[in-house]
Amino acid sequence: MIETIAKQTGAAFKLNKGDKLKVIDPLGEQVSDMVLFNAEDKREKLSSGKTLDFEETILITKGHHLWSNRSHKMMEILEDTNGRNDFLLAPCSPETFQIMYQNPEYHPSCFENLYTNLAAFGLEPDDVPTAFNIFMNVQFAADGKLTVAPPTSKAGDYVLLEAKMDLIVGLTACSAEQSNNYSFKPIQYEIIRAQN
Amino acid sequence: MIETIAKQTGAAFKLNKGDKLKVIDPLGEQVSDMVLFNAEDKREKLSSGKTLDFEETILITKGHHLWSNRSHKMMEILEDTNGRNDFLLAPCSPETFQIMYQNPEYHPSCFENLYTNLAAFGLEPDDVPTAFNIFMNVQFAADGKLTVAPPTSKAGDYVLLEAKMDLIVGLTACSAEQSNNYSFKPIQYEIIRAQN
Repeated sequence: MIETIAKQTGAAFKLNKGDKLKVIDPLGEQVSDMVLFNAEDKREKLSSGKTLDFEETILITKGHHLWSNRSHKMMEILEDTNGRNDFLLAPCSPETFQIMYQNPEYHPSCFENLYTNLAAFGLEPDDVPTAFNIFMNVQFAADGKLTVAPPTSKAGDYVLLEAKMDLIVGLTACSAEQSNNYSFKPIQYEIIRAQN
Repeated sequence: MIETIAKQTGAAFKLNKGDKLKVIDPLGEQVSDMVLFNAEDKREKLSSGKTLDFEETILITKGHHLWSNRSHKMMEILEDTNGRNDFLLAPCSPETFQIMYQNPEYHPSCFENLYTNLAAFGLEPDDVPTAFNIFMNVQFAADGKLTVAPPTSKAGDYVLLEAKMDLIVGLTACSAEQSNNYSFKPIQYEIIRAQN
């Protein structure tokens, strides 16, 4: 069954080892931030530093694994129809909008949508690591300069991932104007349970 | 007073807000991994994702700040005589040598040298975030491919940082062959206390 994450919201759920997760951009040009925790011991979590180190690339896509802070494989990327994701930038947070966009008003954020949904699993805001930002298009120049560009994802593009351990997953439909070309949209996901 | 971190070891210490820390490469071509924690609440710690996001660059050097997971400035880089540091890759760990270098034997690592020294401050291995890797020369290609190259630092090169809050600091002389051109060397540091 395909679930829908409404624009500027999030979700959290469990996956068992062997389950597959399909993250879909139903309308195109939308970003989904994903964080992972070992369901058996939540101190083990997704690590951008370990993933970039072991995979030896900034651009994580089909064929790569997402690694934990304990150097274990958490997920494998089986398919990636768009092929561009980001693993450099932290989830947008209230401070992102205040500091980077000079917006002092309340603004929904991936960080808030992650920790509020993950609270049901006993996780706290400080537990949220740098997310794997599916469909996010962060360009890096030779001098290191980073630019957030509109996603290249088209309606129906998806990433298919397989859980390599029992996981708690946090997932969002991104709230930042810059990440999704100023068009807030939903994200969809489907859990394909492993045969038991 | 200048302190010396012997090759393949580490240190941990406190800094007060306003103190300056000078991290020196005494012989050249050596890397020092640094992690930071808020001394008042250790759940606040250094964040590569937040730093790359707020500074809008992969290459963190003079004029930039090191940011926490709570979007606060932890340190400011006042001087950087070499100018090349890495903030993409996790500290080398026992698994780095097993998985990437096919070395099943015991190997000292920055990760071990960080958590063993930080234990005196009540910190645990799982608390160690992706480090700011001073003098580390990680090259990134246009296709995202990452390569660890010898440091460009010469004998006496240093980075001078100012604490923007009370901090617990973990610091190493890197243990990985690839990071320091197969020549294990010490790192030196000097704490310049703020006037009280």
